[in-house]
Amino acid sequence: MLAVVVVGSGIAAEQLSPADPGLRLLENSTASAFGLGVLILAFAPISGAHFNPVVSLADWLAARRGRAGARTRQLIAYIGAQCGGAVFGALLANAMFDRAALQIAGQHRVTGGHLLGEILAAAGLIAVGLAAARHGRGVSALAVSTYLGSAIWFTSSGSFANPALTLGRMFSDSFTGIAPASVPAFVLAQILGGLAGLSLMTLLYRPGADR
Amino acid sequence: MLAVVVVGSGIAAEQLSPADPGLRLLENSTASAFGLGVLILAFAPISGAHFNPVVSLADWLAARRGRAGARTRQLIAYIGAQCGGAVFGALLANAMFDRAALQIAGQHRVTGGHLLGEILAAAGLIAVGLAAARHGRGVSALAVSTYLGSAIWFTSSGSFANPALTLGRMFSDSFTGIAPASVPAFVLAQILGGLAGLSLMTLLYRPGADR
Amino acid sequence: MLAVVVVGSGIAAEQLSPADPGLRLLENSTASAFGLGVLILAFAPISGAHFNPVVSLADWLAARRGRAGARTRQLIAYIGAQCGGAVFGALLANAMFDRAALQIAGQHRVTGGHLLGEILAAAGLIAVGLAAARHGRGVSALAVSTYLGSAIWFTSSGSFANPALTLGRMFSDSFTGIAPASVPAFVLAQILGGLAGLSLMTLLYRPGADR
Amino acid sequence: MLAVVVVGSGIAAEQLSPADPGLRLLENSTASAFGLGVLILAFAPISGAHFNPVVSLADWLAARRGRAGARTRQLIAYIGAQCGGAVFGALLANAMFDRAALQIAGQHRVTGGHLLGEILAAAGLIAVGLAAARHGRGVSALAVSTYLGSAIWFTSSGSFANPALTLGRMFSDSFTGIAPASVPAFVLAQILGGLAGLSLMTLLYRPGADR
Repeated sequence: MLAVVVVGSGIAAEQLSPADPGLRLLENSTASAFGLGVLILAFAPISGAHFNPVVSLADWLAARRGRAGARTRQLIAYIGAQCGGAVFGALLANAMFDRAALQIAGQHRVTGGHLLGEILAAAGLIAVGLAAARHGRGVSALAVSTYLGSAIWFTSSGSFANPALTLGRMFSDSFTGIAPASVPAFVLAQILGGLAGLSLMTLLYRPGADR
Repeated sequence: MLAVVVVGSGIAAEQLSPADPGLRLLENSTASAFGLGVLILAFAPISGAHFNPVVSLADWLAARRGRAGARTRQLIAYIGAQCGGAVFGALLANAMFDRAALQIAGQHRVTGGHLLGEILAAAGLIAVGLAAARHGRGVSALAVSTYLGSAIWFTSSGSFANPALTLGRMFSDSFTGIAPASVPAFVLAQILGGLAGLSLMTLLYRPGADR
Repeated sequence: MLAVVVVGSGIAAEQLSPADPGLRLLENSTASAFGLGVLILAFAPISGAHFNPVVSLADWLAARRGRAGARTRQLIAYIGAQCGGAVFGALLANAMFDRAALQIAGQHRVTGGHLLGEILAAAGLIAVGLAAARHGRGVSALAVSTYLGSAIWFTSSGSFANPALTLGRMFSDSFTGIAPASVPAFVLAQILGGLAGLSLMTLLYRPGADR
Repeated sequence: MLAVVVVGSGIAAEQLSPADPGLRLLENSTASAFGLGVLILAFAPISGAHFNPVVSLADWLAARRGRAGARTRQLIAYIGAQCGGAVFGALLANAMFDRAALQIAGQHRVTGGHLLGEILAAAGLIAVGLAAARHGRGVSALAVSTYLGSAIWFTSSGSFANPALTLGRMFSDSFTGIAPASVPAFVLAQILGGLAGLSLMTLLYRPGADR
């Protein structure tokens, strides 16, 4: 559903606001932030609202209880479901807008600044997610979605910050798409950013640092 | 009042932003989402904030207590009030903008993608509504209105997702209107979507699935 | 401060977005809604956040405790402070944007539709305010400001809905201004709307109607 | 990070919406307000979310407990960290958008109206911050960020309202930048405004005034 939201609102914005790329992004970022917040709220009680392999990975690294084997199997299952769902969501969004369901994006996105943007976007996402998780589900949904609504703007890369969604966006030749050749570098930057965010918050919120 | 909000803000947006259809929709979607949230908050203590026959139908199907006859009579009364209110609201919005109160919309909207969009929009609305209802009225108002603000963008159909409102919109020849010939297919798609959303959430939130 | 917010953001929007009146109103309505919410939150503990003579009047009519004389004197003092503050705020906004502090608006606004819009805007404001007051200050601030952000769009009149602010807006010759000749009819419509909203909510929320 | 948000989203808005300065500011103000809210929520448990020397100064003036020497040393350390972080954030934003990391802004901003705007912006920020602090962290994050989203619009100066951020903005030659020659007058206006806001709230919320 997150892929439907991001890709679908991107297609709508592209069709309706051809003149101004900024307005298009504002429409897409608002819809994406609102949609993500609602999805977190609706699905957090079911699965913890893990829509992002970097989030699941950080959770796996930070976890202290449960058997390692079971947790690793769950991580792999989650990442598989996230990637499958994102690809299916992109195809569904294409179909909903009466476009060819299967298409490959042509937007090449790799520059030094964009990769720096993805590292920052993913680091911020993990940091905000970990900090907000201390306040309960409602605050988490609000904080993470608000973060995304801001990060889409303040990062140079459009804040993909999600390897599964990046994979799904490969299948939409619209302004939210990403060419297959740009995917590996983006995913690597997202993982690096996630690890940086996790390290930062582990340091800041170590026992005794809270006040 | 919901029809006043949706149709009225649509007329205002159409008058003020003739150049860019995306900007017009952003203005309309923001006003609609804000207005729906406030209406839910204000009227939930009175009637449960049922402004939508699909929501009332899902409620009727999911209910387990109370006599079936009384509940069915209430469902019929609610749907009647919803449809009557929506038509009256559309006429009031027309009058408020110094237009002919009675007019018939000319926008034909039925395509395969749009019907898929309505199914998805209504399924999501019911799913979000049911999930949010577990968190109390404030969260419900926020979640459902935020969902609408997003769905207007990520669905191809503009996310009517409400048979009563669809009926009301027949009476406004503005960009939020819908031609009478398109109404039956839209309403059918909305009901199908509502049933799909109800089934999904019943499955996901079955006793024991929550954690 | 509310007059500074409404008039100031109106001047900024007028200067920065000359091309599209809809975009200008979106900027103005967002800033006004956000600002009103913050002002209610900040000043509710001091004076109940009465920035609006119609709200104070409804409160005076609805009150059941306290001596009538003292309450009437308070009502008169509040309305005086509201009008004085709104006029001073408009002058301050003019000065802040390096314009002549004292100026008279030239926008004639009276039409049948606009007066209907003001009645609806004020009725809705009182209804939302009374309903939200049952949920505490935070919800009140959110609901009333969100309502305004929506009503500016769904009413034809721009949802002044506040006699003191209407008086202040006489002193700004910008798109948020109102010509002196239009003020009496607007204020009368606002008072009528306020009475209608109060009557509606008294009826709906009468003892025993809540569930 | 606040400097990354403000400067980064400013560069993005400038690149994507060259035609309409109002739209550009709407994009920048939305991203800035969202980002500030999230940063407050994430870092308040660590350091109280002091990102602003005027806020730290007001806190230092209002504090009644703790040794004066230790508090003064903390104030100086905070202001140093705020200024260093803001400058580094501006450089990082430049680099992320593949621009020269080190650049000096050319926007001269000092007018009588703009300084009045900064006084008002800082006074409002301190007033809102103090009032919201009584409601807990969640409300503080929401109120302060919402205030900023509104004040960017209703003040003539763009509501810098933060001496550290003003310093950082010297290093970005984009529409959110400020020429070095304009910085001293802006910072002075911000400090004056902060003192005015603190005085106002101390007066309004003096013991016994709350109800």
